[in-house]
Amino acid sequence: MLTVSGIAGLPEIREGDDLAALILAHASLSDGDIVVVTSKIVSKAEGRLVPAADREAAVTAETVRVVAERGPVRIVENRLGIVAAAAGVDASNVPEGHILLLPVDPDASARRLAQRLREAAHVGVLVSDTLGRAWRLGQTDAAIGAAGVHLFERPDRDADGRPLAVTMPCVADELCAAAELVKPKAGHVPVAVVSGRPDLVGDLDLPGARTIVRSPDEDLFRTGG
Amino acid sequence: MLTVSGIAGLPEIREGDDLAALILAHASLSDGDIVVVTSKIVSKAEGRLVPAADREAAVTAETVRVVAERGPVRIVENRLGIVAAAAGVDASNVPEGHILLLPVDPDASARRLAQRLREAAHVGVLVSDTLGRAWRLGQTDAAIGAAGVHLFERPDRDADGRPLAVTMPCVADELCAAAELVKPKAGHVPVAVVSGRPDLVGDLDLPGARTIVRSPDEDLFRTGG
Repeated sequence: MLTVSGIAGLPEIREGDDLAALILAHASLSDGDIVVVTSKIVSKAEGRLVPAADREAAVTAETVRVVAERGPVRIVENRLGIVAAAAGVDASNVPEGHILLLPVDPDASARRLAQRLREAAHVGVLVSDTLGRAWRLGQTDAAIGAAGVHLFERPDRDADGRPLAVTMPCVADELCAAAELVKPKAGHVPVAVVSGRPDLVGDLDLPGARTIVRSPDEDLFRTGG
Repeated sequence: MLTVSGIAGLPEIREGDDLAALILAHASLSDGDIVVVTSKIVSKAEGRLVPAADREAAVTAETVRVVAERGPVRIVENRLGIVAAAAGVDASNVPEGHILLLPVDPDASARRLAQRLREAAHVGVLVSDTLGRAWRLGQTDAAIGAAGVHLFERPDRDADGRPLAVTMPCVADELCAAAELVKPKAGHVPVAVVSGRPDLVGDLDLPGARTIVRSPDEDLFRTGG
């Protein structure tokens, strides 16, 4: 059985806050747990708030490639390789007159956090963001940073012993999706703890979430540009 | 807190099997639970196995539009509007020499199942499939059929009271993703029960999963064709 618990009671996060200490003060972690942290509070702790007047400039600075554009909507690939509306630049749940950029290096943020949290328990860390997707409406939460978590499962065989060549569930994204279900957008629950899949927790030198992004030449779904 | 429990002990499903009776015999359902059923067993119960010799013909018959093609990989939009490799035609976990087509109408399948399960408890039903996605490696489970479940959350305001115009998490897909984490591909756990979000369970006439699919003119990510 999997359990997913939202961690309530965290204060509003400000630049320089010690996220690891705050999480440890509000959550009881066990070996094998996976801590899913909304990128928003990682960004806030890392001082990634910028004045809102710079919004378009900020989006442009984060953009590597424009994937699609229609009216005011700009879907771009950002410097992390992530395809997102407005490059992931965020105006919700931030102080009036400001916007929030993604962490500079979410995998490094996850690793720093995991190192600290592992002083308490052998946990993995995922940094999640809310991403739209092609072909389907709405968004789901997905992993943009990871440390000490196996990102994919690679089942060799189906239940009848036949090879499953293509199937490779992205459990990191599924864990972030599960965590979103206990993190209402209108409430202050920016951290969730998933228990019940200790097999997905591993060494801190496992690949980071940057490796979930398809390289351009592997991706059949890229439009030109 | 959310809990996600895999339902073990179901027999291999065959054409004509009564899925509702089998689920009720193996799971203890409570009001507000959401039952996530792998499309594979719905297809099997509905007799959607066809001889494997017809694989390419079966893929073509299910295809409405070819989205991308490279070598042996054919990513297509199928008659359900779902973009998937090989139109969702499946060769794993099926008897040798056969392939499995998706249910004819997964929303109708979900509704029939929900009607029966509601004789025991007021639950919602999702039919899940494992889908690849653009830009990111691997697959996640998503909802291709739904009955009695709110598919999206529409938060009006962020925690500071500002409108969240664009944000609309697809909780149906997130529930299926969470369920996948307790349904190993190499094991016989084709059903999971999610408890802890009774607010997402509603009337059986709520929109089905077909409405998650973006209409072509809304989708910025469609390649021509």
